[in-house]
Amino acid sequence: MDTRKNVEVCYTPGEYEYFKGEYDLIVVIDVLRATSAICAAFENGIRSIIPVATIEEAQDYKDRGFLVGAERKGQIVEGFDFGNSPYSYMNEDFIGKDVVLSTTNGTKALSIASDAETVVVGSLLNLDALCEWLENQDKNILCLCSGWQDKFNLEDTICAGAICDYLINTGKYTSNEDSSIAAKYLYLSAWVNPLGYLKSSSHRRRLKNLDLNEDIKYCLTPNQTRVVPILRDGKLVKI
Amino acid sequence: MDTRKNVEVCYTPGEYEYFKGEYDLIVVIDVLRATSAICAAFENGIRSIIPVATIEEAQDYKDRGFLVGAERKGQIVEGFDFGNSPYSYMNEDFIGKDVVLSTTNGTKALSIASDAETVVVGSLLNLDALCEWLENQDKNILCLCSGWQDKFNLEDTICAGAICDYLINTGKYTSNEDSSIAAKYLYLSAWVNPLGYLKSSSHRRRLKNLDLNEDIKYCLTPNQTRVVPILRDGKLVKI
Repeated sequence: MDTRKNVEVCYTPGEYEYFKGEYDLIVVIDVLRATSAICAAFENGIRSIIPVATIEEAQDYKDRGFLVGAERKGQIVEGFDFGNSPYSYMNEDFIGKDVVLSTTNGTKALSIASDAETVVVGSLLNLDALCEWLENQDKNILCLCSGWQDKFNLEDTICAGAICDYLINTGKYTSNEDSSIAAKYLYLSAWVNPLGYLKSSSHRRRLKNLDLNEDIKYCLTPNQTRVVPILRDGKLVKI
Repeated sequence: MDTRKNVEVCYTPGEYEYFKGEYDLIVVIDVLRATSAICAAFENGIRSIIPVATIEEAQDYKDRGFLVGAERKGQIVEGFDFGNSPYSYMNEDFIGKDVVLSTTNGTKALSIASDAETVVVGSLLNLDALCEWLENQDKNILCLCSGWQDKFNLEDTICAGAICDYLINTGKYTSNEDSSIAAKYLYLSAWVNPLGYLKSSSHRRRLKNLDLNEDIKYCLTPNQTRVVPILRDGKLVKI
């Protein structure tokens, strides 16, 4: 009998309904840039992040005196102090604070996944630490990519493929969905040079136009932190 | 100014809404097995195929005396004479006939795409003939994969990637979506041995369990026909 658990990949929040209910543990991924920024924030000593899906919710928290970030289409929303650049959080003012964040894709995915038993945050920045933690969970895992405006994107898929590859190699997990198999293939062919590979990525081109090249380089450099953020009672905290 | 047209890939009918309206020409792909069977049927001299999305519509045509095929979850629906095995159509009785067909994924995709100006049928079986025809259309092209039960599948994606690769190499087309770029990568790494590559595909495993190995081999063998089926007034005919 095959006692291995499954690790699968869902490319977009919109497709989550076809996976829903079969997975106890969801890894939400938005490499460019929400989940990378969240990892960077915890690495920098933030106490918690409250992810909210809408600008209205974000504004409500702002009115109540919280530090609130909001990003749409790659840019900071007017009236908010920061967006989802990892560099925004490398600031002493954030140490020990609770911060609210709303982004185009990433916090939407977090909100969709929040019915699952366990929800954690993945990015290339915390890849090894995350995989080592996942390895011992003995749960069916779904990597939920945030995509870009409801469509597939390469960087999230490659990150998800890296997680599948690691977990399958432990012998404790297997992948059955074609989406997972393709993610693993894309990861294996991309890994030699993720930045070069993603040159052709549409999303990366879009951010480059917004002059976010430093952010992109940072977000595509694996293993800069050992933090694994987890969702507890609607708040992200460090495991 | 870049005068190239776009060729993009949509992985599932469910995601079509995010692409809709931007493309004048849709290539519907269901390699295992609907669009392969359709190509095989025209190669065998069928006059037309009327694709219908539901079993009810199929039954209605059957009651009116049509030759009607219906497949769900890989098997012939009870009460119908054939499903979507390409071998069903290699039969003298079909020559010159109009046939009605309803399948799990493929005819659903055809029905979703039918609002576009031009809809054609793609598979590995008619790959070169299709690409040569597409090359001269000077239209924005969307390859609409049928997927498997609303999820991504490898074989349709690889076929779509092959079409993108061909058209991009003509210099007349370009791809901007990450889904198209990934499809091209998957095609390029799969092409040496599509059958071997797809060994790990979930859908292929499912069909193998149904003892359809001969169908799979046939459907994954490129360029067995020069036909390009096109949708005209709700009927598929040869171009």
